[in-house]
Amino acid sequence: MGEDWFCSVPNEALHGEFLHDVMELVLKEAVFAGTQRKNPVVRWHDPDHLCDLLNLTPAEKPATHAELLRVIHDTITFSVKTGHPYFINQLFSSVDPYGLAGQWVTDALNPSVYTYEVAPVFTLMEAAVLEEMCHMVGFPFGDGLFCPGGSFANGTAINLARFKYFPDIKRDGLGCAPKLVLFASEDCHYSVQKMAALLGLGEQNVCLVQTDKAGRMDPLHLESQVQRITAIGGAPFMVVATAGTTVLGAFDPLPAIADVCTKYKLWFHVDAAWGGGILFSPMHRHKLTGLDRADSVVWNPHKLLAAPQQCSVLLVRHPEIIKACHACNATYLFQKDKFYDVSFDSGDKYLQCGRKADVFKFWLMWKAKGSLGFEHHVNALMDCASYIKTALQQRPHFKLVLEPEFINVCFWYVPPSLQGLQEQPDFNEKLHKVAPHMKELMMRKGTMMISYQPLQNLPNFFRFVVQNSGVTHQDVDYFLDELDHLGADL
Amino acid sequence: MGEDWFCSVPNEALHGEFLHDVMELVLKEAVFAGTQRKNPVVRWHDPDHLCDLLNLTPAEKPATHAELLRVIHDTITFSVKTGHPYFINQLFSSVDPYGLAGQWVTDALNPSVYTYEVAPVFTLMEAAVLEEMCHMVGFPFGDGLFCPGGSFANGTAINLARFKYFPDIKRDGLGCAPKLVLFASEDCHYSVQKMAALLGLGEQNVCLVQTDKAGRMDPLHLESQVQRITAIGGAPFMVVATAGTTVLGAFDPLPAIADVCTKYKLWFHVDAAWGGGILFSPMHRHKLTGLDRADSVVWNPHKLLAAPQQCSVLLVRHPEIIKACHACNATYLFQKDKFYDVSFDSGDKYLQCGRKADVFKFWLMWKAKGSLGFEHHVNALMDCASYIKTALQQRPHFKLVLEPEFINVCFWYVPPSLQGLQEQPDFNEKLHKVAPHMKELMMRKGTMMISYQPLQNLPNFFRFVVQNSGVTHQDVDYFLDELDHLGADL
Repeated sequence: MGEDWFCSVPNEALHGEFLHDVMELVLKEAVFAGTQRKNPVVRWHDPDHLCDLLNLTPAEKPATHAELLRVIHDTITFSVKTGHPYFINQLFSSVDPYGLAGQWVTDALNPSVYTYEVAPVFTLMEAAVLEEMCHMVGFPFGDGLFCPGGSFANGTAINLARFKYFPDIKRDGLGCAPKLVLFASEDCHYSVQKMAALLGLGEQNVCLVQTDKAGRMDPLHLESQVQRITAIGGAPFMVVATAGTTVLGAFDPLPAIADVCTKYKLWFHVDAAWGGGILFSPMHRHKLTGLDRADSVVWNPHKLLAAPQQCSVLLVRHPEIIKACHACNATYLFQKDKFYDVSFDSGDKYLQCGRKADVFKFWLMWKAKGSLGFEHHVNALMDCASYIKTALQQRPHFKLVLEPEFINVCFWYVPPSLQGLQEQPDFNEKLHKVAPHMKELMMRKGTMMISYQPLQNLPNFFRFVVQNSGVTHQDVDYFLDELDHLGADL
Repeated sequence: MGEDWFCSVPNEALHGEFLHDVMELVLKEAVFAGTQRKNPVVRWHDPDHLCDLLNLTPAEKPATHAELLRVIHDTITFSVKTGHPYFINQLFSSVDPYGLAGQWVTDALNPSVYTYEVAPVFTLMEAAVLEEMCHMVGFPFGDGLFCPGGSFANGTAINLARFKYFPDIKRDGLGCAPKLVLFASEDCHYSVQKMAALLGLGEQNVCLVQTDKAGRMDPLHLESQVQRITAIGGAPFMVVATAGTTVLGAFDPLPAIADVCTKYKLWFHVDAAWGGGILFSPMHRHKLTGLDRADSVVWNPHKLLAAPQQCSVLLVRHPEIIKACHACNATYLFQKDKFYDVSFDSGDKYLQCGRKADVFKFWLMWKAKGSLGFEHHVNALMDCASYIKTALQQRPHFKLVLEPEFINVCFWYVPPSLQGLQEQPDFNEKLHKVAPHMKELMMRKGTMMISYQPLQNLPNFFRFVVQNSGVTHQDVDYFLDELDHLGADL
C-alpha cells in the first residue's frame, strides 16, 4: 500500500487495473448475464439469511482490490436483475445500453448542474432537452426542471400552483392564507397527498374525485366537488390529473378537466410520469389530447422510455413562475458579477442546490435512437400489451380486471381449485390470497417478478407492465405458462 | 441496423463493443487524463459558442455508434473536470476511484430502493450504513434517510420537527396551527429559507440569529430571539445549527445551542452537510462536540468525504417520527401480505417513491479504505488547509479574511495596483472587482477553478476548499503562484 492509498483521486498505476476489472465484471455479470433469459431474475434469500451471506458492516481497515471485486460480484449476484426481460414488477425496467453509457460518463465527470461555469455542457443540454419536451407537450414558451423523482416533481408543481395564486405564502407562510384545496382522482399517485402534507396544505385538503369503471377521473364529479369545497369556504386552486395511473394505467379525460380548470381558474397539472412517453408515438398519443392545455406536466423518461433511474422532468407553461417561486439569489453561488451571461446559471430555478446531471443519459438515448427509435419503442410496448391481453383471454385461468387502455394489463389468476366457485361468498377472500402465494413461489424460483396489489374493493390481482421493448410475444407466453405452472396446485 | 435497434435491452452482439469503447474512452479521457495536472481543468467557451460547437437538439433519426462516441468525446472535452486537483470551486470535488466503481455497478443494476423484494442487497446495505453513521453521530437507536441532496435533507428535517410538535398538520394543514418559527444563523445554507417556503412556513419565519466574527451562531442572541418571537405570539419549534458553513466553514457552538433547545423544548437540527465527515478523525472531531444532543443531523458524504454526487444522509434520533410523519401505506407497493418481513421495506419511510441506491458508492469507498482511510483523508485535508494558511501569509498580496477554522480558507488577493491603498474610500469597491476579474482570467486559461463570493458587507473574496486528498503542498504553491500571475497586472 503506497502512501496515497486513501486518496480521493484516481491514479492509473494504482487504480487502472481495478477499474478495468470492475468494468469487465459489471458488463459480464450485471449487463449481459443479468439480462439473459436463461439466468434467474433473482436469487432469493430471506433478509436475515442474506445479511449473514454478505458482510455489510463498515470496517476499520481497508480491503484489497481482490476483496472488493468479490463484494461487487456478490452485490451483483444477490441483486434483483431489473433489466431482465422477466422483471415486470414496477413501472421501471430495462438496462438501456445507451442510457447506461450516459450514466457512466456522467459519473466520471461528476458534475453538479447549478452554474454554467461548473457544468457548461450539461447546462446547455438540459436547456435543449427541456425545450424539445416542452415543444412536444405543447408549451411553446415553457421551461422545466429535472427533479429527483416523480413525487418531488408533483410536489414542486403544487408549490408553483400555490405561488401563482398566493405569492405571499413564500414569504409569510400559510398562516394568513385561505384553506387551500387541490383535487385529484382517487387513483392518483400517493405522492399527491404526501406532498400536500409536506407543503403544509394537509392530506385531507386533497379532495379525491371519483373515477369511472376504467379508473378515469369523472369530470362531473370534479366540478361538483369544486363547487362543494367553495361552498364550505375552501379555496380550490389546482387539479392534478393523471395520464397513466399506477395500477390500472388509466388516462384521465384531459379536455373535460381542462374545461373545469378554465371555468374555475384552477392550475391544471398533469401527472404523466408514467404515460408521458407516449407522446413519441403518433399512433397512440391521442390519449394525451388536451395535455397542451395544462399549466404543468410531470413526465418521467425513466418509466415508459426506459431511461435509467432517475430521470424525472417537470414541465411548466409559465417559466416566470418557476423563477419567482424558487429564486433565493444565494450570492456565493449565483454571483451577478460573472464574466458570462448568468441567465445560463439554472441553479436558482431549483429547490435543490447540488444536483446530478440526469439529462445526459436521456439525451444520449435520444441521440442514439432518435425520436423515431422512441416511437418504435412505445409502439412495441403497446403491441406487447395488446398481445398480452389476447393471450390472457385464450387461457381459462386468467381473468382480466378490466379492458386495458395502456401498458398496464391487470388480471386475476383463478387457480383450478377456485374455478366455478365465483358465486360462493368467500370466493373473493380466497382469490385475494392467490397472488401473494404465487408471488412467493415465483420469487423463490427466481423465474420472474410480477407485482400484485388490491385496489379499492377488488381482491389482489396481478399487473403486467412491460416497458422493456426487448420483451417478445414468446416471452409473454413464457410468463403465462409459468403462471399456470405456479398456480396449478393452489 | 437489425430489427431491434431501438430496444431497451442490452445485446452483447449489438452493444458489447460499443459499451467497451465507451468505458475505455471514459477511463482514458475523463478519469485519468481529466485529472492530470498537465491538462486543463476546463476548456472554456462562452455559452453561445459552445452551443454552436455541440449539436444538442434531439433529432428524428438514430445515430451510429461512431457518432455517439464522438459526442461522448466532445461532452468529456468541454465539461469541467471536477475531479482535477486544480478544481476547488465548490464543496465537492475529486473522482474517487472506489466511489466511481460503486456508481457504475449501481447504474448497471438500476435498482429502486423501496422494497426488499426489488433491492434486497441495497436495502440491507442502507440499514448497515445508517446504523454506523447513527452510531458515529451519537444516536444509539436512530434511523436515517438517503436524500436527494442537502437541501431536501434539511427540508425533511424541518418537516419531522414540525410533525413532532404538531402532528395534526400532516392531515389538516397549517391552517389551524400557530405561527411556527425556526431559527438559524445568518450564515446558514439558503436551503433553510427555501425549504421553509416550500413547507408553507414562510421564509420570514426563519429567524436569523447573529454570528460572531468567525461566522458562528451567537447562542445568547439565539435565546433572546426565541424569547422575542414567543413574546410577539410566534411559536418557536426548531433550531438549525450549522457544522461547517458554506463560505467560512464555521462550526456553530453546538453545546450552547443544545442548552437553548433543551430549555425551550425546541427540535435541535444540525446541518453538518459539509462538516459531518470530520467525525472520522479523532484529531479533529472535537469540532462536533455536542452533536450527540441533536434530534437530527444532515451529513453529505459527497462533500468532505469525496463520495460521488449525490450521497446525502439525514440522521434522526427518533425513528418512530420518521415513520409516522412520512407513512402513506400505498397498497400497490407496500403490501402487508408479503411472504417476507415487510419491516425491511423502507419505502414508506421516504418522501420519495422511486429512489436511487446512493448507498453503494459510499459503502464501497468505506469498504475499500476502511474508517482508517477516511480518517487519513480528513487529516490530509485539514493539514492541507493549514498549509494553505501558512503559505498565504508568507506572500505579500494575499490577505486572510479570517483565521480559518476548517477546510475553508478565505482570502483577498490585493493586486500590486491596490497595495498600500487600504485607507482610500474606494478601496473596497475596487477590491470587490478583483476576484471576478481573476476568475475570468483563470477560466479562460483553464488552469484552475476557485470560487469567490461577497459575504454580508465584505467585498468579494476567494475561498479555497480542498476536499481532494490528492492535493499536495506543491499543488497549493501552484495555486498561489498562478494567482500571483493572474493578479500581477490588475
